[in-house]
Amino acid sequence: MQDALILMAHGSSDPHWRAPFERLAERLSERLSTPLRLAYMEICAPSLEATVAALAAEGVNRAEILPLFFAAGRHLRQDVPAQVEALGEAHPELQLTLLPPVGEHPAFVEALAAVVAERAGEHD
Amino acid sequence: MQDALILMAHGSSDPHWRAPFERLAERLSERLSTPLRLAYMEICAPSLEATVAALAAEGVNRAEILPLFFAAGRHLRQDVPAQVEALGEAHPELQLTLLPPVGEHPAFVEALAAVVAERAGEHD
Repeated sequence: MQDALILMAHGSSDPHWRAPFERLAERLSERLSTPLRLAYMEICAPSLEATVAALAAEGVNRAEILPLFFAAGRHLRQDVPAQVEALGEAHPELQLTLLPPVGEHPAFVEALAAVVAERAGEHD
Repeated sequence: MQDALILMAHGSSDPHWRAPFERLAERLSERLSTPLRLAYMEICAPSLEATVAALAAEGVNRAEILPLFFAAGRHLRQDVPAQVEALGEAHPELQLTLLPPVGEHPAFVEALAAVVAERAGEHD
């Protein structure tokens, strides 16, 4: 089995908006043994579709999709699951798993709380 | 001087989307001595305007606004600074400071990287 992890951000036509996601992906690539891709749900490239197709072409058998979203709204509860299902049918040799958004991960909430607490503490 | 911290999320008509932000604000309120408010940039209540007006009415002199965004796109580089400036003029007794988005905070990026690395590590 060859695995991969896809970080999926919302997407924007604004390169300023994309820059922090690209920095995060670069930093993580250095730390992880699992191959990592950054993809965007909409608006800008690389799309989730193109990313999944590229992984399938590289012989990856299993990919997890981690949404870099604070919360699951309509996109993550409706549009994206349908898109992932269609991609799974288009690439039956590649097993896709859509994870809950990173913002719902307890460790993320804890880390965010620590960042905010530190920020607030600067003025105590 | 009485201070406050405003956590500003994007906003959505979807209560599922708002729930993680509300949980975060609740958890943080218990940990911080600084009064904390959760406000939304658009779409849903409480708005940033209403929140700032309420803080001014309570006699708060200084409030920091921390955007709960991964990255600063057009909203945070154009719309929100203009809105904060207008609110500052409307409430001259309350000094408002717009902070960079939490996603650009180095500790946040590090925490996110740790969450993703742990997630990826589950399959090593």
